[in-house]
Amino acid sequence: MTQEALIDLLKQMTLAEKVAQMLQLPPSFFDESGEITGPMNELGIDQATVESAGSTLGIMGAKRLKRIQQEYLAKSRLKIPLLFMHDVIHGLRTGFPIPLAMGASWNVDLARESARIAAYESAVSGIHLTFSPMVDLVRDARWGRVMESTGEDGYLNSAFAKAFVEGYQGKALEKYRIAACVKHFAAYGAAEAGRDYNTVDMSRWMLREYYLPAYKVAIDAGAKMVMSAFNTIDGVPATVNDWLMKDLLREEWGFDGLLISDWGALWEAVVHGQCQDKKEAAHRAIEATLDIEMCSSCYPQHLSTLVSEGKIKEEQIDHAVLRILTLKNELGLFENPYRDADEALESTVLLSAEHRKVSLEQAQESIVMLKNDADILPLQATQKIALIGPKATTHDLVGAWNCGVLPEEAVTIEAGMRALFPQIEVMDAVSWADELDLAGAVAMASRADVVVLALGEEASMSGEAKSRTVIGLSDTQLKLITAVKATGTPIVALISTGRPLDLSAIVEDVDAILITWFLGSEAGNAIARTLIGQNNPSGKLPMSFPRSVGQLPLYYNAFKTGRPSEDQFEIYRSNYIDERISALYPFGYGIGYSPFHYSDITLSSNTLDKNRSITARVTVTNQGEHRGKEVVQLYLTDLFGRVVRPMKELKGFVKIELEAGMSQELNFEISEAMLRFYDNRGHYASESGDFTLFIGASSADDARKVNFSLVEE
Amino acid sequence: MTQEALIDLLKQMTLAEKVAQMLQLPPSFFDESGEITGPMNELGIDQATVESAGSTLGIMGAKRLKRIQQEYLAKSRLKIPLLFMHDVIHGLRTGFPIPLAMGASWNVDLARESARIAAYESAVSGIHLTFSPMVDLVRDARWGRVMESTGEDGYLNSAFAKAFVEGYQGKALEKYRIAACVKHFAAYGAAEAGRDYNTVDMSRWMLREYYLPAYKVAIDAGAKMVMSAFNTIDGVPATVNDWLMKDLLREEWGFDGLLISDWGALWEAVVHGQCQDKKEAAHRAIEATLDIEMCSSCYPQHLSTLVSEGKIKEEQIDHAVLRILTLKNELGLFENPYRDADEALESTVLLSAEHRKVSLEQAQESIVMLKNDADILPLQATQKIALIGPKATTHDLVGAWNCGVLPEEAVTIEAGMRALFPQIEVMDAVSWADELDLAGAVAMASRADVVVLALGEEASMSGEAKSRTVIGLSDTQLKLITAVKATGTPIVALISTGRPLDLSAIVEDVDAILITWFLGSEAGNAIARTLIGQNNPSGKLPMSFPRSVGQLPLYYNAFKTGRPSEDQFEIYRSNYIDERISALYPFGYGIGYSPFHYSDITLSSNTLDKNRSITARVTVTNQGEHRGKEVVQLYLTDLFGRVVRPMKELKGFVKIELEAGMSQELNFEISEAMLRFYDNRGHYASESGDFTLFIGASSADDARKVNFSLVEE
Repeated sequence: MTQEALIDLLKQMTLAEKVAQMLQLPPSFFDESGEITGPMNELGIDQATVESAGSTLGIMGAKRLKRIQQEYLAKSRLKIPLLFMHDVIHGLRTGFPIPLAMGASWNVDLARESARIAAYESAVSGIHLTFSPMVDLVRDARWGRVMESTGEDGYLNSAFAKAFVEGYQGKALEKYRIAACVKHFAAYGAAEAGRDYNTVDMSRWMLREYYLPAYKVAIDAGAKMVMSAFNTIDGVPATVNDWLMKDLLREEWGFDGLLISDWGALWEAVVHGQCQDKKEAAHRAIEATLDIEMCSSCYPQHLSTLVSEGKIKEEQIDHAVLRILTLKNELGLFENPYRDADEALESTVLLSAEHRKVSLEQAQESIVMLKNDADILPLQATQKIALIGPKATTHDLVGAWNCGVLPEEAVTIEAGMRALFPQIEVMDAVSWADELDLAGAVAMASRADVVVLALGEEASMSGEAKSRTVIGLSDTQLKLITAVKATGTPIVALISTGRPLDLSAIVEDVDAILITWFLGSEAGNAIARTLIGQNNPSGKLPMSFPRSVGQLPLYYNAFKTGRPSEDQFEIYRSNYIDERISALYPFGYGIGYSPFHYSDITLSSNTLDKNRSITARVTVTNQGEHRGKEVVQLYLTDLFGRVVRPMKELKGFVKIELEAGMSQELNFEISEAMLRFYDNRGHYASESGDFTLFIGASSADDARKVNFSLVEE
Repeated sequence: MTQEALIDLLKQMTLAEKVAQMLQLPPSFFDESGEITGPMNELGIDQATVESAGSTLGIMGAKRLKRIQQEYLAKSRLKIPLLFMHDVIHGLRTGFPIPLAMGASWNVDLARESARIAAYESAVSGIHLTFSPMVDLVRDARWGRVMESTGEDGYLNSAFAKAFVEGYQGKALEKYRIAACVKHFAAYGAAEAGRDYNTVDMSRWMLREYYLPAYKVAIDAGAKMVMSAFNTIDGVPATVNDWLMKDLLREEWGFDGLLISDWGALWEAVVHGQCQDKKEAAHRAIEATLDIEMCSSCYPQHLSTLVSEGKIKEEQIDHAVLRILTLKNELGLFENPYRDADEALESTVLLSAEHRKVSLEQAQESIVMLKNDADILPLQATQKIALIGPKATTHDLVGAWNCGVLPEEAVTIEAGMRALFPQIEVMDAVSWADELDLAGAVAMASRADVVVLALGEEASMSGEAKSRTVIGLSDTQLKLITAVKATGTPIVALISTGRPLDLSAIVEDVDAILITWFLGSEAGNAIARTLIGQNNPSGKLPMSFPRSVGQLPLYYNAFKTGRPSEDQFEIYRSNYIDERISALYPFGYGIGYSPFHYSDITLSSNTLDKNRSITARVTVTNQGEHRGKEVVQLYLTDLFGRVVRPMKELKGFVKIELEAGMSQELNFEISEAMLRFYDNRGHYASESGDFTLFIGASSADDARKVNFSLVEE
């Protein structure tokens, strides 16, 4: 449809029809299979509104969605198709690693490919838009929703944000692509005390410099939609925050796509004690340019009245509706309301061998090895293995927000390992119900060459509304480790988790640790292939693993203080009397089966002219006997700033693959643009002065550094 | 000296002499007895500057300070006396409870009296000014310096701030009074992750509404000095933050007293990476109107040059020096440079029986009883008591920041109890070195009627730079409790602590809990008298005691969220999957030996006109058999606000004393001024609308409430 035709359509619409477009109904209005992901209130809307609502969410399946569309259009006066949205977070049916695990891969090409596949499977299942990517910066492992983020660094998050949007949307929402919705605008990841939906509070400077960039990158990459956050910004819920939405997002950033509330969030402006009633919420939200209200009914109940009372202009509604119609048009729904929904393709495309292959690849690259004493890994096929633990035989390897990914279709660790290790014994020694066959576990461990302990969290312990105050392994698992340790058999710990865990209690007791997150449909295969060395682990932590929950929030790019600590207690320094301040395993950390050697850094010049660039060069060599990948990371420290600057900031990375014994020279271009930052007056600019540049294998790798100066000239 | 003479004196001063006035030298320049409370750098200043420095700190003693003053003046061209400052935090020689414990008394009259006594002892010891009160709002028990605050509520802190200033300064720094310095400006208590000196970040709204009020109250009460905080505000260290100091403190608030940096904090602007060098730090600080640099040397090294280079005006220095001279004049130092320093009085006044008596009273009112199952307390003198634990015999009952308070002069719990309980056996069963005579403890417990376990923290575990990631009792103490519990003898736990501890592990195992903080010189007597019922405990918690360190930061006046929790896990609510969200013991909580009954609240009107007031009335009855005190607390909830409002806010309290069986009617006046708040645009105003008013025995006491409306008229 042409833009002209679209505007003409808008003109034909009654006010009631327009307002209905701005309502997103919960799935229960259309299909009992739909997924409920938030509390429900009585909507109190009439049948006409239901029949002309603009969108729904949480339903999948070509047949189902085609039927819904058909029935909807049959009753529709103007034949404006419904928009179908869904939480396709890490795969529709082919399960990819959770986003935090994808962050650990540092492989944005794979992330883009996983998003393309998720879009493909979604498209043929009848879905038009996914509420992804979530790009919220996260610094607190208590928050369960860290599993849905790519971690604690805005630069890394931005890279993934772009890749996800590109993967979902393609170049222009072509066939088998779906629209992306970047969320949660803004700063939802900073929920105080790591408690979901809790108050967020920070300075504007902090917001702009650290929390906002990844949203901006996703928008610049073309994300069609932005979802407002549940939290407050400056004491005002994001969904009705006119500074955040109108002044910043629309005017300053120029975003003209769709703005949707999170589930029930507009009604929650009343619960927040911000709006007296739903009418005020509707008024505030439309002033803040919110286009679609998800699963509450402030808009349908009050927008028309607000117009008739002259409190808002119908024009404001027209803007919103035109944006909604525009996306429907970009998706081609006016020409084909069923778009890519295709039962036949569903049966061949969903969880296809090709898709599983990409999932396996992504899963393999997401595994982070934290420890490998005496090169106990990789294992040999001839070794006698005891696989013990609550994660040994379970299918619970997919993680939260699994959409249509069926856990029972995920390869278990047992299945993956049995295919590669003929001499394996398996025991689900510790169930989540705290049953403990320690004697059996000890006996099995005693007769094995190596014990593989499959440990971690249940999928239901992370995700939305799944915050924890204790982030260690369960007591039962700790007892298992202690008992097995006493046998003297070497231990490899596999940690399935949706968040950084406190591993202090076990790190000395085990010989190797692999962080295996929730890896998706191919979890067991990825883990087994890694254990035997068919995959050389190459993941790097996207979030700091703390020594204690008492350190949280914890993040590598912490700010300089006036009394810096040497990471051991010293009086009158910024530290704790009972714990070090560093992470147990820092951001960017992860090892593989081959050591990589880094040459010294050479800089093309120690002086960076504002209008030119300089090059930092380093040669990386695989000094081991295994082909492997390495994430080469570049960090900068701004020695002095007009606001306090972080001790170190990621400013570049590249994931390379090297055959054993081979070297590669890497060049990083350093330009003035990389040195800009926001200050307390909202200025975004670099400053002349001195910087330290690090290139290394993690955020804590200080072995190589050089200084350079930015000069005005 | 007249103001005219003072200005004349200023005119006679050389620039070098002026700059020297702005330097506060560490005590080591004058006397080896002085106290070092921060890291030291080489000052790199010349002898002339040393000899004309305006002030020093950390030295006490009439003889010593008179000698220093005499020697100083002998070399002084203009005979401008030295100003002697000190950290007199909770007593000079007579130890009062730590400020957090004084907060627990909710007795501002006693706090005022304790400050008067501290001032008296300080004055005769030659001290002119104390770096007290600290009024920093604190919400995180990990931070060791919570011991120096009066807690998590701005209203309560403000009441104490005023009382302390009045107690120290009297009406006008009359004889035996000293000047007060309110600190740490601003928001030092919000150090991230409870780690001392760590980054502080918050919105302006949060800063103004919650963190700033208590400083303002102290200033309005006449505090002569303000100390800048170590932390950043909006990314800029407070000490060089011109918005905070110049725009807000000086211009908006009109503060014309002295502004001093914290120890070394000006130099730390360089360490923060904010200033390139000490010269820039000096420049930024003088622009921000900092008058005195404590224990670093940016000012003496660079101010004169900045003047000669025309970068600052000498007038700026004159303003600062005049403020310094003004305080010296207000203290009468030009007439009598030794002021109240008096060796003879020292020997009679310090730790006098009269002062001990007030300390005992303050200590008694600071004790908070959290639990008293089956009325196990008060004990009888005839009972066989086993006093066991690391706090049983130790003098470590004074706490950090003890100034001249000698722990060995504090009454031990053993000594206090032996005087009242003839049948007592005492065992220091658990030393801090983790030695454990469990068998002995169990034997002693078995033959006793009641076990009193004296538990808690060492004084060295709280205070400045004493943050903890784990806030429970030590493992050894937990083992002691478990062992003693098994004997079946009832247990009374005394908890000496400088912070809220996580008592979850012991709360079910003991029959009674008394929070005994660090109570000062009369600790043992106060505790013994409370145990036997000569004192009926009347303290109320000034900070929430958490269930887990994983809940922190935790505070009762948390903000409304969009998905409030009923304090038990429910999906899609703001809570944790493994812990309740409430405190184990909330702000304002504490019980006594007599139950107090509260009548229903009557309001003089349910409508509050903006220009009038209404009265809330409640009758409180002592229904028990013991005379006792009760802190009657008034809380308000603003149902709707233009920014998100706290779930409840303390807005009034009164501590009353009632004989057994007696009643008292209390009237609280409610006016529009109590309903004002800051919003995200910096407006401070009330809003018409509905409010809920609670009067009760703690922040969690919701039994009585009434609604009223504020109307415009």
